[in-house]
Amino acid sequence: MLYLIGLGLSYKSDITVRGLEAVKNCTRVYLEHYTSILMAASKEELEEFYGKEVILADRELVESGSADILRDADKENVAFLVVGDPFGATTHTDLVLRAKKDKIPVEVIHNASVMNAVGSCGLQLYNFGQTISMVFFTDSWRPDSWYDKVMENRKIGLHTLVLLDIKVKEQSLENMARGRLIYEPPRYMSIAQCCQQLLEIEELRAEKAYTADTPVVGISRLGSPTQSFKAGTIKELAEYDAGEPLHSLVILGRQSHELELEYLLEFTDNKEKFKNDVIADQEYFKPAPWVPPVEEED
Amino acid sequence: MLYLIGLGLSYKSDITVRGLEAVKNCTRVYLEHYTSILMAASKEELEEFYGKEVILADRELVESGSADILRDADKENVAFLVVGDPFGATTHTDLVLRAKKDKIPVEVIHNASVMNAVGSCGLQLYNFGQTISMVFFTDSWRPDSWYDKVMENRKIGLHTLVLLDIKVKEQSLENMARGRLIYEPPRYMSIAQCCQQLLEIEELRAEKAYTADTPVVGISRLGSPTQSFKAGTIKELAEYDAGEPLHSLVILGRQSHELELEYLLEFTDNKEKFKNDVIADQEYFKPAPWVPPVEEED
Repeated sequence: MLYLIGLGLSYKSDITVRGLEAVKNCTRVYLEHYTSILMAASKEELEEFYGKEVILADRELVESGSADILRDADKENVAFLVVGDPFGATTHTDLVLRAKKDKIPVEVIHNASVMNAVGSCGLQLYNFGQTISMVFFTDSWRPDSWYDKVMENRKIGLHTLVLLDIKVKEQSLENMARGRLIYEPPRYMSIAQCCQQLLEIEELRAEKAYTADTPVVGISRLGSPTQSFKAGTIKELAEYDAGEPLHSLVILGRQSHELELEYLLEFTDNKEKFKNDVIADQEYFKPAPWVPPVEEED
Repeated sequence: MLYLIGLGLSYKSDITVRGLEAVKNCTRVYLEHYTSILMAASKEELEEFYGKEVILADRELVESGSADILRDADKENVAFLVVGDPFGATTHTDLVLRAKKDKIPVEVIHNASVMNAVGSCGLQLYNFGQTISMVFFTDSWRPDSWYDKVMENRKIGLHTLVLLDIKVKEQSLENMARGRLIYEPPRYMSIAQCCQQLLEIEELRAEKAYTADTPVVGISRLGSPTQSFKAGTIKELAEYDAGEPLHSLVILGRQSHELELEYLLEFTDNKEKFKNDVIADQEYFKPAPWVPPVEEED
């Protein structure tokens, strides 16, 4: 059996009771280690908690070495642990499809991920549109295809969850060219950098998918003991020091109801200003006012 | 301390290790019991598992009697258990706001909900738009405001998660009029009924937000031992017997990639037909083909 087990967001004890039982019954335990990190637990702490060795699975192992992961999984139990939910931000459908082809039974044990826990900022999950990813811009690569998606979401009043890039076990171009297996230290995009990149692309495209004054919510260390939220404009959060990773961001849409805004006000520096920023931003993509039809004359 | 604790989708052991520890430290334990049900565990099984009495909280208690729930929560630990995630399908922001007003500290322990576990049907969560709710139609009440939301989602290629109505502890109009506290047996909308209501409203509105041949995925008992998926057209699933509740549905958008479709094919009766249905449906809301700009003559 291949178990795909979500670890939740932060604590080692965020695994479900059922998930922990499954891990204890596995002969090999892999931890997917390139799309996210468990914030409040190290590999060693997990090993002690599970009473099992934990094998870190980088992108290479998962994408090219899945035969290793699936080895003997028709006869033994193998666990593949994923921070968040196995079908959260990055799907592992490919691994499941390969297991099914090898006639290996698969069981999924779900958990919270940023995709649903983001609701704890107070905005209704109902009103989120498509999710976008923001990558670290480089000198030569500043992709902006996400801009159209934000536009599409905001045109119909929806919020946009922005997932921020993380770089784990990346090589520098030089080391890659020379074939040296030396890896850069991990990097996690901050809320401030994400907002700066948002501002840069809006300046370039100037189609007003959003403006510097559009309200956003910065989310730091969601689900961890030091979780925090900050509501303000993009311009304001471009200067915001959110502390340790992981961070994510929500760009507000027009569909924000009173109770949701009341909740967000707790996270602002200046309640009055934020309220006004929201009202001003709601003018964008506002439906035209209803005009009564002209009565026909007899 | 008020603990808001997600129970996950089905098993009593779907609670997280941290959630279970918190429950064991509480003097009162409420279970929210009107927006969803835990499929594979009864109240009695939960009580045995927790070693605690569990108080069922119906809509009335949560919406009007929150003072009862919050009583002494500044001095004692009180748990409010929610199937799925506390900020999942129905938010409990109101309860949190009241607790904060009373200076009661609040801790949220997240879990999986249909909002993220729906990813296990194989469709990327990235590409879901706003979520809609389908209520039981009555003779006099057949609301269709969700139709516009499906249209908005599909216009930009996004999938739509449809949450199906559940009726727990509802009174008949007659009993309500006579002030008799007699409740109807619980009712859970089926995938088939949802699809029939979709067809009825499309016939009425005829704006082609979707058609009878639009591909959908029916999801039964997500996360439970008898979880199952069925992919087909709306017309086909209007006849589908999905068995015991809970059910939900996904209406596909145009943005379905090859790997996602490969995954869905496992859930079809006729792979070839489903593939063709998807291709035909993708003609709706297709962007106009790119035409090269006319070269100016010198």
